[in-house]
Amino acid sequence: MPELRKDPVASRWVIISTERGRRPSDFGTEPERERAGFCPFCPGNESKTPPEVLAYRANGGGPNSSGWQLRVVPNKFPALQIEGELGRQGDGMYDKMNGVGAHEVIIETPEHGETLAGMSAQRVEDVLWAFHDRVLDLKKDQRFRYILIFKNSGRAAGASLDHPHSQLIATPIIPKRVREELDGAKEYFNYKERCVFCDIVRQELNQGVRVINENDDFVAIAPFASRFPFETWILPKTHEPFFEDAQKHEYVNLAKLLRDLCLRMEKVLINPPYNLIIHSSPLRETDGRYYHWHIELMPKLTQVAGFEWGSGFYINPTPPEDAAKYLRDAKV
Amino acid sequence: MPELRKDPVASRWVIISTERGRRPSDFGTEPERERAGFCPFCPGNESKTPPEVLAYRANGGGPNSSGWQLRVVPNKFPALQIEGELGRQGDGMYDKMNGVGAHEVIIETPEHGETLAGMSAQRVEDVLWAFHDRVLDLKKDQRFRYILIFKNSGRAAGASLDHPHSQLIATPIIPKRVREELDGAKEYFNYKERCVFCDIVRQELNQGVRVINENDDFVAIAPFASRFPFETWILPKTHEPFFEDAQKHEYVNLAKLLRDLCLRMEKVLINPPYNLIIHSSPLRETDGRYYHWHIELMPKLTQVAGFEWGSGFYINPTPPEDAAKYLRDAKV
Repeated sequence: MPELRKDPVASRWVIISTERGRRPSDFGTEPERERAGFCPFCPGNESKTPPEVLAYRANGGGPNSSGWQLRVVPNKFPALQIEGELGRQGDGMYDKMNGVGAHEVIIETPEHGETLAGMSAQRVEDVLWAFHDRVLDLKKDQRFRYILIFKNSGRAAGASLDHPHSQLIATPIIPKRVREELDGAKEYFNYKERCVFCDIVRQELNQGVRVINENDDFVAIAPFASRFPFETWILPKTHEPFFEDAQKHEYVNLAKLLRDLCLRMEKVLINPPYNLIIHSSPLRETDGRYYHWHIELMPKLTQVAGFEWGSGFYINPTPPEDAAKYLRDAKV
Repeated sequence: MPELRKDPVASRWVIISTERGRRPSDFGTEPERERAGFCPFCPGNESKTPPEVLAYRANGGGPNSSGWQLRVVPNKFPALQIEGELGRQGDGMYDKMNGVGAHEVIIETPEHGETLAGMSAQRVEDVLWAFHDRVLDLKKDQRFRYILIFKNSGRAAGASLDHPHSQLIATPIIPKRVREELDGAKEYFNYKERCVFCDIVRQELNQGVRVINENDDFVAIAPFASRFPFETWILPKTHEPFFEDAQKHEYVNLAKLLRDLCLRMEKVLINPPYNLIIHSSPLRETDGRYYHWHIELMPKLTQVAGFEWGSGFYINPTPPEDAAKYLRDAKV
């Protein structure tokens, strides 16, 4: 069972994993399952993953058979495990609990070499619906307080398999980075009586210099204080605390915007590795006034080094106004 | 002039640099100054760096001449610039200020291919004295509130030059990561009336399972909630808020312990890239009871990916008790 441990100084939680490589000689080499050039996410290999928890099959077919457009399976090497109770306890001055949670993989397409930019908008929309469906199911579990949806694309961005996929991890505590945003947004709301993200959307649409693309429901911007070159946020234009409560037309428009953004990234940055995350309100949060869900997309172009680790400051060599212009002007 | 910008949600500061590569085509290629195999930090090339602000020369010799054991120079491509006032101002809802600060490079040795593990303890001690001397000088500047000392070793850890060097950046604000530790330590102190780091030292020496090495003044441990495999902290055994206020015998013993630790890392992890940072109290902090300076050393063995960026959680595949045992048992 993995263990959740809390740093007594910074109150940061860490997952000490027991299902992954751990000896010194394990680092720097590919995991066993990758070496043979075999892909467990490709059609025909359904038996090599844990049994699916969701799949979209346009033409029917039984569970774990081929013929799917999208499949969701538990992660075979989960960071957190679904069974068990939290078991909060101390170890002298330290705090720990069992590594309880859910860790699932959304296999976005049967095509091994596809990207979000290469898929049709309809297929990207299916990926969003899969996120939606899994969150609705998992939020019934009262042990979970947050579900983080994320995508690592490319080895340099931490992907261990090339086949296009996203992941979600449900956690029994609200993650620190989310907590910081919640606290900051709440403080802003208490002071201004307005949502900070709504204000960002208004100022960005008004100034225009950091806007990359937009449609009726969403806008993509290079954020004012971008940590990384070409960092991009996608925000709903109207206030909405939960990703999973979006309307049908919003998923349609988000799929279009996200696909277009990925096309621009591929064009300008030549298929960059990237991380994508969705930040939504904590499960069962009752005050929906101050937080506004959004996507953060971070191409992996620079190294995070000692200064960033030690300070939490970031050094960004590309002003977001320049990044937005490059992406806005890309011919797609 | 670089610009400091604040994220309005997470209150995170970012340095938007104007002195570094910025166009899409600049990423993924080595900076110009590296391509020719020329090292500006090697003896004989003193004129290729900005004029030195400190040097140790056992046999005399004028400034910026050869014959040095250690040299400190301003960074030629500084993240922050030394001249100017802060100029705090708004841009609509956003906050920014001029990127004022100091950014210096400590060239640790004239030998291009040396490492901390390969240097004598006396020479490692010189590096610590250089940190000490520069902090004492820079803290006179009332614009600065913090000085972060750090070292990136190896390209994968963000080093852009191979020649052994450390860096320091003086900032006009207390960095977020430091602020988090200060706040956490203060909260612990208010509750317990003891320093949290002193308690960590006591519990670790008592339990022994996460101790790597120690001497009269310092102990190196794999922290209970290590974020990264083989993450290591070095803590003074007695309470001390400021790195720069250590006594002579402490620098002697720190140099010995640090060198020994680097030897163990090289042996067990086969010369890993790593980041090292020193966390000390903010400049001119008057309450010295709650914070305890220390070193954090993080070998770069895994990728930080979407889950970490989105949550602030870390997934560590090597339990710190195992990491400590590997390093403790290494024959050095």
